Amino acid sequence: MRIVLDAMGGDVGIEVNMAGAYIASKRLSSEDTIIFVGNETLIEKYLKERYRDFPVRYDIVGSENDVDMHDTPTWALENKKNSSVAKGLQLVKERKADAFFSPGNTGVILAFSLMKIGRIKGVIRPALGFTFPIGKHPLILDLGATPDPKPENLYQFALLGIEYMKVMRGIKNPKVGLLSIGEEDSKGSVIYQKAFELISNDKNINFYGNIEGGDFFTDKVDVIVTDGFTGNIVLKFAEGMINWVKDNLKTSLKPLPLAILGLTLSAPGFLGLPFFYFSIKKFLKKASYDEYGGAPLLGVNGVVLIGHGKSNPKAVSSGIMNAKYLASKNLVENIKRVFERSEGEKD
Amino acid sequence: MRIVLDAMGGDVGIEVNMAGAYIASKRLSSEDTIIFVGNETLIEKYLKERYRDFPVRYDIVGSENDVDMHDTPTWALENKKNSSVAKGLQLVKERKADAFFSPGNTGVILAFSLMKIGRIKGVIRPALGFTFPIGKHPLILDLGATPDPKPENLYQFALLGIEYMKVMRGIKNPKVGLLSIGEEDSKGSVIYQKAFELISNDKNINFYGNIEGGDFFTDKVDVIVTDGFTGNIVLKFAEGMINWVKDNLKTSLKPLPLAILGLTLSAPGFLGLPFFYFSIKKFLKKASYDEYGGAPLLGVNGVVLIGHGKSNPKAVSSGIMNAKYLASKNLVENIKRVFERSEGEKD
Repeated sequence: MRIVLDAMGGDVGIEVNMAGAYIASKRLSSEDTIIFVGNETLIEKYLKERYRDFPVRYDIVGSENDVDMHDTPTWALENKKNSSVAKGLQLVKERKADAFFSPGNTGVILAFSLMKIGRIKGVIRPALGFTFPIGKHPLILDLGATPDPKPENLYQFALLGIEYMKVMRGIKNPKVGLLSIGEEDSKGSVIYQKAFELISNDKNINFYGNIEGGDFFTDKVDVIVTDGFTGNIVLKFAEGMINWVKDNLKTSLKPLPLAILGLTLSAPGFLGLPFFYFSIKKFLKKASYDEYGGAPLLGVNGVVLIGHGKSNPKAVSSGIMNAKYLASKNLVENIKRVFERSEGEKD
Repeated sequence: MRIVLDAMGGDVGIEVNMAGAYIASKRLSSEDTIIFVGNETLIEKYLKERYRDFPVRYDIVGSENDVDMHDTPTWALENKKNSSVAKGLQLVKERKADAFFSPGNTGVILAFSLMKIGRIKGVIRPALGFTFPIGKHPLILDLGATPDPKPENLYQFALLGIEYMKVMRGIKNPKVGLLSIGEEDSKGSVIYQKAFELISNDKNINFYGNIEGGDFFTDKVDVIVTDGFTGNIVLKFAEGMINWVKDNLKTSLKPLPLAILGLTLSAPGFLGLPFFYFSIKKFLKKASYDEYGGAPLLGVNGVVLIGHGKSNPKAVSSGIMNAKYLASKNLVENIKRVFERSEGEKD
């Protein structure tokens, strides 16, 4: 597989991305190619100075005037035509690459994806998905690609989410929940009530029904369907809360490791303490976004994964690996088949 | 002040509510009366057997066929006309009581509030508010009273939230944020963009602008305006997450207190450990809903506070005290003045 890495994306940029690519390169096969898109001089410098033993094939495609994390989509479409985002997605369009990963500006990547590679036939609007790193690790979509959805959009998000979970996690018949404000069928806004009907009527969907905000932490469903407005707010709330919990706990944990080590050495009976310490560390890690490499942009005619702007090298590496995996498992072709089928049924 | 307690509301019901009333009674003054509405025989039994020294005046009003936590609003309006909720709100309507508190079924209380005491003139739809127990403790509203708002509703929620925070927390000029998906003015759904305009145009409002999901944990605003759909999902998500964090930590904390006590006694140098333990305990408490007695139903023509169905006695007691406070500080009259002013400006 040929995976584009937007080497310039993210809050930190090239340093983190090159380090991530290097981690990924050790897990890729000799069939794979990483296509670095970005500042050629800088990329070459990293590859010559730091990663001279880069173990897989790579290409470099130069870009200029790259996308900033604060660029707005409409402005970027006009003014960032030669950016790494634009050029990388152009490669996917021309079938010179199989997948695209960037820890970059979500809105701009969405805009260029629609411009360059477009939607899969039958898909009204794409959706941004995210594997929620707690509970049963459900996929939640949309997270902002479609803030003002119609019921048909929400129905399509269910279809997109199902195919993603089949491919990415090998779940045979993923269970879908519609995020609303009560379990009864009649709950929620008018748009959600109509969406509930549309999803119920599709007998191919394993539909749980409405779920509530607390069900992110239960095992009820594999796919959580929501609109881009609510989804975005919930995700940012979760992130804020995780950071808040971490800040609260880390302050408490700081003086602990040495104390525990000393205690355990002097009094071996207290072996429970390191266990306690590591269980809290494990909890903090579980609630971390670092492990999760990329939110899939579903419904566009190519594999596009978007990482968190604050991605560390490990997250960039996961993003690259996931992009490869989704391309090799034919995610886009699978989605196409589903939408062809549902178009066929309408005729 | 005469405060109605719905003695039958909540998941547990009368036992918790009577215990909560007893805690509150010690903080109320000789001017105050608690009006218990519920099963007369049971209430009298508690007062005779457990709380014989009940230190303030009380009345008992009998009810029958009380509201269940699973009753739907429309069904309850027809079938629960003699319930404690209906009778309690009837007392507020007839000015025989100054405030109403119930740890009960939110939807049913909302429905009976609208039927019995109605809206304040000028208020299109009421909003359910909640003081978020983290960060700067902002008020968030609406949480489900109005799941399908128009821009005018969101604007009015800002007005309602401001008056509540002035009265309840004594904040002179509360800062308002509109919960959306990006700080720029143009972000959010069409309805939110219009609401942004309406709030901006009211020069009496100290408007911060759009805020994001992560801003619950920052100090940006005192009032967070959202629709009942998004607000409800965020609140239930928060609750689910807090419980998840607690479950994760409590498992780790269980064997600790004794171990720490033993260690500290035998090696006084390790005084840091109990400190650590209590700081985590404090964190768990901070993230708890138990301390917060009641979500105000704002925009109805009376003081109505709704507690969590899982309220413990302490939470019931806080609910009663807050209901008294809001009534004594003329919350409803203050809101009336604001809406008269804004009606006047339209003429």
